[in-house]
Amino acid sequence: MTAPGKTLAELARVVDGKVIGDDGIVIDRVSAIEEAGPGSVTFLANSRYYSHLNRCRASAVIVGRNIISDELRSGIPAALLEVADPYVGFAKILQIFSPIERYDGTISAQAAINADAVVAEAVTIFPHVFVGARAKIGARSVLFPGVFIGDDAVIGSDCILHPNVVVRHGCSIGDRVILHAGVVVGSDGFGYAGRSEGRVKIPQVGVVEIHDDVEIGANTTIDRAALGKTIIGRGSKIDNLVQIAHNVVIGEHTVIAAQAGIAGSTKIGKDVILAGQVGVVNHIQIGDGAIIGPQSGVAQTVAAGAMLSSGLAAAPHREWLKVMALLPQLPKLWNLVRALEKKVEGFAQGVEKDNRR
Amino acid sequence: MTAPGKTLAELARVVDGKVIGDDGIVIDRVSAIEEAGPGSVTFLANSRYYSHLNRCRASAVIVGRNIISDELRSGIPAALLEVADPYVGFAKILQIFSPIERYDGTISAQAAINADAVVAEAVTIFPHVFVGARAKIGARSVLFPGVFIGDDAVIGSDCILHPNVVVRHGCSIGDRVILHAGVVVGSDGFGYAGRSEGRVKIPQVGVVEIHDDVEIGANTTIDRAALGKTIIGRGSKIDNLVQIAHNVVIGEHTVIAAQAGIAGSTKIGKDVILAGQVGVVNHIQIGDGAIIGPQSGVAQTVAAGAMLSSGLAAAPHREWLKVMALLPQLPKLWNLVRALEKKVEGFAQGVEKDNRR
Amino acid sequence: MTAPGKTLAELARVVDGKVIGDDGIVIDRVSAIEEAGPGSVTFLANSRYYSHLNRCRASAVIVGRNIISDELRSGIPAALLEVADPYVGFAKILQIFSPIERYDGTISAQAAINADAVVAEAVTIFPHVFVGARAKIGARSVLFPGVFIGDDAVIGSDCILHPNVVVRHGCSIGDRVILHAGVVVGSDGFGYAGRSEGRVKIPQVGVVEIHDDVEIGANTTIDRAALGKTIIGRGSKIDNLVQIAHNVVIGEHTVIAAQAGIAGSTKIGKDVILAGQVGVVNHIQIGDGAIIGPQSGVAQTVAAGAMLSSGLAAAPHREWLKVMALLPQLPKLWNLVRALEKKVEGFAQGVEKDNRR
Repeated sequence: MTAPGKTLAELARVVDGKVIGDDGIVIDRVSAIEEAGPGSVTFLANSRYYSHLNRCRASAVIVGRNIISDELRSGIPAALLEVADPYVGFAKILQIFSPIERYDGTISAQAAINADAVVAEAVTIFPHVFVGARAKIGARSVLFPGVFIGDDAVIGSDCILHPNVVVRHGCSIGDRVILHAGVVVGSDGFGYAGRSEGRVKIPQVGVVEIHDDVEIGANTTIDRAALGKTIIGRGSKIDNLVQIAHNVVIGEHTVIAAQAGIAGSTKIGKDVILAGQVGVVNHIQIGDGAIIGPQSGVAQTVAAGAMLSSGLAAAPHREWLKVMALLPQLPKLWNLVRALEKKVEGFAQGVEKDNRR
Repeated sequence: MTAPGKTLAELARVVDGKVIGDDGIVIDRVSAIEEAGPGSVTFLANSRYYSHLNRCRASAVIVGRNIISDELRSGIPAALLEVADPYVGFAKILQIFSPIERYDGTISAQAAINADAVVAEAVTIFPHVFVGARAKIGARSVLFPGVFIGDDAVIGSDCILHPNVVVRHGCSIGDRVILHAGVVVGSDGFGYAGRSEGRVKIPQVGVVEIHDDVEIGANTTIDRAALGKTIIGRGSKIDNLVQIAHNVVIGEHTVIAAQAGIAGSTKIGKDVILAGQVGVVNHIQIGDGAIIGPQSGVAQTVAAGAMLSSGLAAAPHREWLKVMALLPQLPKLWNLVRALEKKVEGFAQGVEKDNRR
Repeated sequence: MTAPGKTLAELARVVDGKVIGDDGIVIDRVSAIEEAGPGSVTFLANSRYYSHLNRCRASAVIVGRNIISDELRSGIPAALLEVADPYVGFAKILQIFSPIERYDGTISAQAAINADAVVAEAVTIFPHVFVGARAKIGARSVLFPGVFIGDDAVIGSDCILHPNVVVRHGCSIGDRVILHAGVVVGSDGFGYAGRSEGRVKIPQVGVVEIHDDVEIGANTTIDRAALGKTIIGRGSKIDNLVQIAHNVVIGEHTVIAAQAGIAGSTKIGKDVILAGQVGVVNHIQIGDGAIIGPQSGVAQTVAAGAMLSSGLAAAPHREWLKVMALLPQLPKLWNLVRALEKKVEGFAQGVEKDNRR
């Protein structure tokens, strides 16, 4: 992760920050605070770690604005780079020192590219890639080994499709999209009519449309629509092993953590956050900005801005067994308490009568 | 999705339906009700949407028998196609307009096919496919790029193995089976004997047997048996990212939704439905026709026809935190209520005595 | 699974066991007890099945030491092989009859191997494998079709990478590691700074380090660290479809069942067991030897040796609906009971006063 050095003044310009200390120091890498040394910049987003700062060997530390008191400052050997959001500052400086890899823009002779595919300039295609008929690959995109692009699929510009990504026929991917290894886009939705012996497959003749700046984690699956489109909105980020069923529509800048699953035709708004292992039933809406806690089950439409949970926290096993056994008796317990209440109420009235007598 | 047109009379014959209106209209596609226009047939399975019918621009609408009153009928511009199950009718007509794609029956020179493999007639093998020694591929089956067929594996006729499907050695797949992209069949079961440093791998020397007409979703994993067979019964449908452990046996026409997991040696009957994210422990049985709700944990054998759940519905986060904190105290609450009950019972007897005095 | 036969005496030496009966019998395979016949050895770990023994057609049965009474013994036609742990004995004997497959040590001309990669002796590389620049493959390792090894990645000796495994750049794999089909090692961690439109990707510039004797199940994903390393400790076993996030550190000989997920930077000790579908939040520790039950959510640091659960067992659906509806009212119920308690306490004091009057 070593790249040509930048002065702290140069870095400050990139992140709209203010240097406290020597802005001429040359920085050549980003390090975790415990591994930082001369030449490295580190960051501090959490006040819990302020006490580490006087032992920090980094040349510079990215911190929030007006966070570090003058008194504390005097004991810190490193220069400070004050920014509005130290985490964003860290991300942007890390991008400088870890530029998106340059690919060589060559197309492997060991790839299988249909003669009717349209491949733009500076595209890199590794060996063992398959590109179907009439598929389009946008400028500077990279297809790693084992990638499959179906007939009539469209990949935008500056995309990275990691090894063994599958984009089936007719699906479209916007610009600057990153699909991690093993992602499947456009598998058939899980749709059947009828029952048992008479069950009939509903052909899944729709597509998937992934908009610009989306990133999708390893081995996540996104099914094509039955009719119409499954849509992943601009800027949304989806983690590993997530299931997106047919005809789901996800808004912009929504974040979905690992192993969450969204059932068919559900509409998720923008800026929504689904934590890990969340399950969402089909045919509902989740409003803009809603936040759903880990392992929760979403069974009904959720209002914009709502914050919901149904996850449970692990407790000592023996005690939990008792809880588990009692839980189905909750209705009985309620009835018991209601009955007791009545009885006690009856006494109270009797006592009153007694007192009045 | 445009195909040569069919008259409504022709379509009626396929779905055993009755036309109300002009049965000579030519239909050339199936559309969602909101996107339908002249030439398209749409369907209506849910009475909620009857009110849309008078604005519907489709040439024909598939509906249930004797569902639409004469009064309602008079306001509907489209012809009606009455069938026993409109959803099945829709599926069958969609199949007509979206026929299973024809593949060209050629074997790519960029595939690696063992000289001892047996490939039947009209099989299509795309580039970058691997077929091992003595493997058999049945007539008209299609192996998409990146498919791996291990030594001695058997694939039936008319199967479609989507990109990057893996079928390891010795496993067998019936006829008309669809394996979606990234499915793994025959990975080693998760079996070890002993503990810690002394843990020993139990060789997984069994196989997986997938019967006819099964469909398995993207990136689902089906482990081979330790000894014997893991079996997926005829006509069963399994969604994406499902885990089927070693020696599991699944009956016919069972449906398993996304991200469900079934632990080792469990036997699932026929016509069972497991909803999304269900977990089933090892070494139990789930009887025929049982239905398990989303995110439920199945810890004991389930009787045929039972309908079970243990999923929880997400509630406002702050309130849920209180519920979560109180839940482990449920045994204490019960004890408290029991004690109260006794005390109140004591009063009641005291009061009775008082009254008798 | 038939291999050259061994006498029971020979097998007894391998598993440090004692033969009761004819130790000269020749055994040529291992069978499940219900399928055993002459020539096969089977095993019995569970006393439930003792009654099967007198009908067992196996030539020999592996059992625990001093488990079978002389009386029971007299009715059993098979020889007995007594060992300390019959399950481990079974595993070791199965290994003898199912030796790790020999691969031919050839490198396919249809693989794409960078000229700067270093491939040790006796490595087997199947067609359609990709090996990047400066990558190292240790002696006798096997790369199945579709495997991707990124630049600078290191694979140890005697590893087996099943079809379509992806090991991205810079990651390292120890010796005798087994990665099942579709495993992804080194995908980017799910890391962003900022919100909504202003969200910025944090480059994930760390790596994954997998130590010796690890086995990882099909389609499991292990993300590379943001900075530093994601680590899987020696001898740990991970099942299918598991998610390991960036900067997670897992100790030695830990076992993680299918579909579990571990969020970022969490540290798991050694000899830990996580059951299926467990979710663990980020930035916590799970101590050595802890055991977490199926579907549990781990939201806080767990002490060494603790045994925790929060999974729920499926109950009849209609009754469960009532439980689900009442659960959010648990705080109300507690308040009600507390109020009742006070009231009853008040009576009790009143009654006492009455009695004293």
